[in-house]
Amino acid sequence: MNDRQKTALDSLTHIAEEVYADLDRGDIPTMKLPLRSKRNIEFDPMTQVWKYGSMKTVRSAKTTQGATTMLRTAYTTDFINDMIRENKSSTLREMYYISEGWNRAKFHSQDESNLLAEDLETITGCMREDFKLRPEESGAQVFGDLNFTTLTKKGKWKTTNCIDDVPENGFNVPYKVEDDTFKIDPGNTTFVMAIETGGMYARLIENGFPEKCNCALVHLSGQPARSTRRLIKRLNEEFKLPVVVFTDGDPWSFRIFASVAYGAIKTAHISDYLATPTAQFVGITASDILNYDLPTDKLSDKDIGALKAELTDPRFSDEFWDTEIRAMLDMNKKAEQQALAKYGLDYVTDTYLPEKLSQMGIM
Amino acid sequence: MNDRQKTALDSLTHIAEEVYADLDRGDIPTMKLPLRSKRNIEFDPMTQVWKYGSMKTVRSAKTTQGATTMLRTAYTTDFINDMIRENKSSTLREMYYISEGWNRAKFHSQDESNLLAEDLETITGCMREDFKLRPEESGAQVFGDLNFTTLTKKGKWKTTNCIDDVPENGFNVPYKVEDDTFKIDPGNTTFVMAIETGGMYARLIENGFPEKCNCALVHLSGQPARSTRRLIKRLNEEFKLPVVVFTDGDPWSFRIFASVAYGAIKTAHISDYLATPTAQFVGITASDILNYDLPTDKLSDKDIGALKAELTDPRFSDEFWDTEIRAMLDMNKKAEQQALAKYGLDYVTDTYLPEKLSQMGIM
Repeated sequence: MNDRQKTALDSLTHIAEEVYADLDRGDIPTMKLPLRSKRNIEFDPMTQVWKYGSMKTVRSAKTTQGATTMLRTAYTTDFINDMIRENKSSTLREMYYISEGWNRAKFHSQDESNLLAEDLETITGCMREDFKLRPEESGAQVFGDLNFTTLTKKGKWKTTNCIDDVPENGFNVPYKVEDDTFKIDPGNTTFVMAIETGGMYARLIENGFPEKCNCALVHLSGQPARSTRRLIKRLNEEFKLPVVVFTDGDPWSFRIFASVAYGAIKTAHISDYLATPTAQFVGITASDILNYDLPTDKLSDKDIGALKAELTDPRFSDEFWDTEIRAMLDMNKKAEQQALAKYGLDYVTDTYLPEKLSQMGIM
Repeated sequence: MNDRQKTALDSLTHIAEEVYADLDRGDIPTMKLPLRSKRNIEFDPMTQVWKYGSMKTVRSAKTTQGATTMLRTAYTTDFINDMIRENKSSTLREMYYISEGWNRAKFHSQDESNLLAEDLETITGCMREDFKLRPEESGAQVFGDLNFTTLTKKGKWKTTNCIDDVPENGFNVPYKVEDDTFKIDPGNTTFVMAIETGGMYARLIENGFPEKCNCALVHLSGQPARSTRRLIKRLNEEFKLPVVVFTDGDPWSFRIFASVAYGAIKTAHISDYLATPTAQFVGITASDILNYDLPTDKLSDKDIGALKAELTDPRFSDEFWDTEIRAMLDMNKKAEQQALAKYGLDYVTDTYLPEKLSQMGIM
């Protein structure tokens, strides 16, 4: 058992101890945790990430609902306790099914069990990965001249260079990327580029962009998984590598950028672990659509609604985003990053990225 | 340029030559290809896969539409020709955008360009991978004691053991898995298990199933990509490894099995490359839901419609499927493979799979 797991075990044991203490005193057991609702989410201008505010919620065993939640908490901590001791892990889906045997503590939907896992993170300050709970898929891939040393199934350390030791699609990021099982040697990498689509990720690899520019590519694969955001954060924080994000040019892609840079509402309790506030947006911007005369699609009603919502989202409240979001609404158009192929397969690496990155002072 | 690419180039050149020959004779150019519609799909009982029938369609430059298609074919073959010579590749999405510069041959949607890529496969008998066209994502992963030797970006051969040389999530399958760039050494593997969900794939890895049973796991990640199906086919055909498929128990998962075993309608022109007719279905079956008393969900109207359609689908016209599909309709229930976690995290590897696989004569 390593330090992270010991901390997780201690934190969970502490939850149980408090319940026992309440009972010993003859009190009805309660649990206090930050209110996990939109009302209690604040954008912290100091750290530039989303965090929970000071509002608390108290769960008491006085009501049936409160008692059920506390019963579920007890079963869940017991389950996690067993997993850590036996060196097992479980998907969030499996935990939901495991609860079939928990009688009245049984979850009625996976939303309930996922929420409880997040509650435990909030209470203990640990991450669900420390509790050995993982999502169905991770999916992110990395390509570039950096080395990751990971534990194989047989418990041996294995170092992989993310150019020399991988097929052309790169290195598969596991669900846990903390230092106890995942070591990073940044090699000659000078910056990190997170990319939304698999097509563009493959394009930059094929065109030799990572080697030419000492750049590590991270494929976000849509809205990025926690391990992907955590890896980007570690590359930025521990190795001082600048991070740029390259996505499609539409409101949903802007949100992908925001979740990398500032954190997401759902994971506000661990923004400090996941968010990279210094990450910069390369494109596709509304200005790019004009300046590079890109093929576009019309904004849908949903796109327009999302852009308007972003105008009041504190994560986008600076001059850059205000200008870009209004420009996109004005022109009523969006564009994909692969639309740059209009000018040929090399245009993105020969022209677009060098121009944009030099404006940003990265290259 | 390797043999596959030379064959692809020759086939494409041949298309152009035929058009020139027509023009030299003073004829209006035409192109003949199998009719790619549901009417012309046949289940070939001999090879047990879906194939196109004998109906042909003729495209003539006499009509505007026919002439446009032939113009697009000319531009596309030229584009592919360039890619093969310059050792580049392109996503299907990029090809769509590239056509922005093709004047009247411009594609109006990606459906049009995808269809043309499939037409070229049908006419030439090559695969779109030989034309250097690839999808956005591949995504499949492999774990087990077998070795893949692949070309790295730098053109060097690299051998990877899919247990010792990979993180716990396994080896990332590239989009091209033909022998010219992807060598297989099956090691001690005695059978292949294709798995629908990432959660179950991770469960079997964590529980040590591949090592214990000399089994190679392939994560299908939903409806499997072409490269995934091709890899399974190669493992089966070239190394005589039995293939079993382990999915959720619902009509959509039955179709995932069918696409691995018998081919899909969309790719009927390359069923010989992609389908593995001897693949067997492990579960979750309707009988499993009863025998193992699994947690279930009610069938939706769409589920019921899909099951009824399968009753008349020749791919499912044997006693096993007829019984299972009717049983599922009768009980009006479906179940996920992770529902086996009801009995604990080890149940699937200690009890369920050994029981099912020994019934099938695999273990």
